[in-house]
Amino acid sequence: MSDTTADYEVVRLDEGGLSTRVEEVAHEEPLELQLDGVPFAVLMRTPGHDEDLARGFVLTERIVRGLEDVVSVRHCTTAPEPEAEGNVLRVRLRDGVGVDLERLRRNTFASSSCGVCGKATIANACELRAPLEPSSRPPWTMRRDALLRAPDLLYTAQAGFAKTGGVHAAGLFTPDGELVLAREDVGRHNAVDKAIGRAAMTRVDFGQHALVVSGRISFELVQKAAAVGIPILAGISAPTSLAVRAARSLRMTLVGFLRGPSMNVYAGEERLGA
Amino acid sequence: MSDTTADYEVVRLDEGGLSTRVEEVAHEEPLELQLDGVPFAVLMRTPGHDEDLARGFVLTERIVRGLEDVVSVRHCTTAPEPEAEGNVLRVRLRDGVGVDLERLRRNTFASSSCGVCGKATIANACELRAPLEPSSRPPWTMRRDALLRAPDLLYTAQAGFAKTGGVHAAGLFTPDGELVLAREDVGRHNAVDKAIGRAAMTRVDFGQHALVVSGRISFELVQKAAAVGIPILAGISAPTSLAVRAARSLRMTLVGFLRGPSMNVYAGEERLGA
Repeated sequence: MSDTTADYEVVRLDEGGLSTRVEEVAHEEPLELQLDGVPFAVLMRTPGHDEDLARGFVLTERIVRGLEDVVSVRHCTTAPEPEAEGNVLRVRLRDGVGVDLERLRRNTFASSSCGVCGKATIANACELRAPLEPSSRPPWTMRRDALLRAPDLLYTAQAGFAKTGGVHAAGLFTPDGELVLAREDVGRHNAVDKAIGRAAMTRVDFGQHALVVSGRISFELVQKAAAVGIPILAGISAPTSLAVRAARSLRMTLVGFLRGPSMNVYAGEERLGA
Repeated sequence: MSDTTADYEVVRLDEGGLSTRVEEVAHEEPLELQLDGVPFAVLMRTPGHDEDLARGFVLTERIVRGLEDVVSVRHCTTAPEPEAEGNVLRVRLRDGVGVDLERLRRNTFASSSCGVCGKATIANACELRAPLEPSSRPPWTMRRDALLRAPDLLYTAQAGFAKTGGVHAAGLFTPDGELVLAREDVGRHNAVDKAIGRAAMTRVDFGQHALVVSGRISFELVQKAAAVGIPILAGISAPTSLAVRAARSLRMTLVGFLRGPSMNVYAGEERLGA
């Protein structure tokens, strides 16, 4: 399928040592949905079949009772910002179909477990903190072999996964690869928030730690790590394209497919030492 | 960890035939966060370490700048509804810390890619449509071997996963196990919405189809399938506890760990024929 993937140059570490290669990454972009001209949701999605997505969304979220209430679904051709191009979709409803925007607004709030959904505009959803401080000294580094051991340590700390196969984990690690704490949850984002919330209580210096997660790395996880200043984010599975782009612009280190003796470094390899 | 899992009786199908056993399922419950008494987010989370989750959430969502702005995080001891017991958390901020609830409300809307987050109260988040119509005739059935073949058909239709390892798929299947259409996306919910949106355009009779997904089955996926009347939801990975409970109360068929020659039936086995 077109638009499903994007190519990124990565540094690959495996038993043969370091090499540079191009890897395909699942494409992720924000899609802003507008209802009769009013933004009402941003979905982090893979571009393509956007009209299907909008129709399915208004049905399964029960915003309309049937597609007969939807007159048209069209991409906005006059996006206000470059990053919104192709990412704004206008849903027009049949005259007389009542969607009580005001009532929905009264019952809702900006934040959500996703860090993105619930936010109504792309600018709002994709807000990033300032890049990590450039330093006059070289950044601290984490030894690559210490990072390679992290998934095993995380797995050992994870009570729920072995039993159910359905629980995500997130752990904070020192530069030496020591596991400071781990948390698990059915939600990827919640596992990260639990680990960060606990670490903040014990005054962990986020700038000196790596965050390792058991699953995929989407944009919101980069956003959450960056919000507290964690410079290294690594995951056992794949990152999305927007996660890679965000990590690069934030000068974070982003590692994916951290498995067995190998890993892919998508950004910030200068923080990984021999 | 306590509270991480819940036990459910399931019907297991494998090469030895059908048997009944108890399976541990990852625990999922809604957590309503209140800020100075006002509900502002519902997170679908695994109970336990809730205060860590709340603190991490307000930090990584940048609702506060640091934990010094948070005076206390406490479970509400006077939950208004039985289902809210243990699931409402009150965050108290330091006097003078400004969170502009009104501005956030103006920019947001109820719906989200999660189907749950963005909704501000548990009642709102956990709303379910009425159970599937009880019928005077027995329900239609899908042959178990047809369902067992579905993941392979879905995988074949999935262009992105093989390349990136990071894309979810959802497909609609006839009772005979024929794949009607499939969609993929970085987001589990989006893949489902894309498939449902496309199927609605071509007037697929949802009540006569099964939805098969490549990943885990959380509550929101049950909610989305139920919203359009799909009676059978199956996934290659684990369901959550709330997904199982919702499927049972909706009289849906819920299948997990649909892999190779085996599956676990968590609800509605009467729709699966020999």
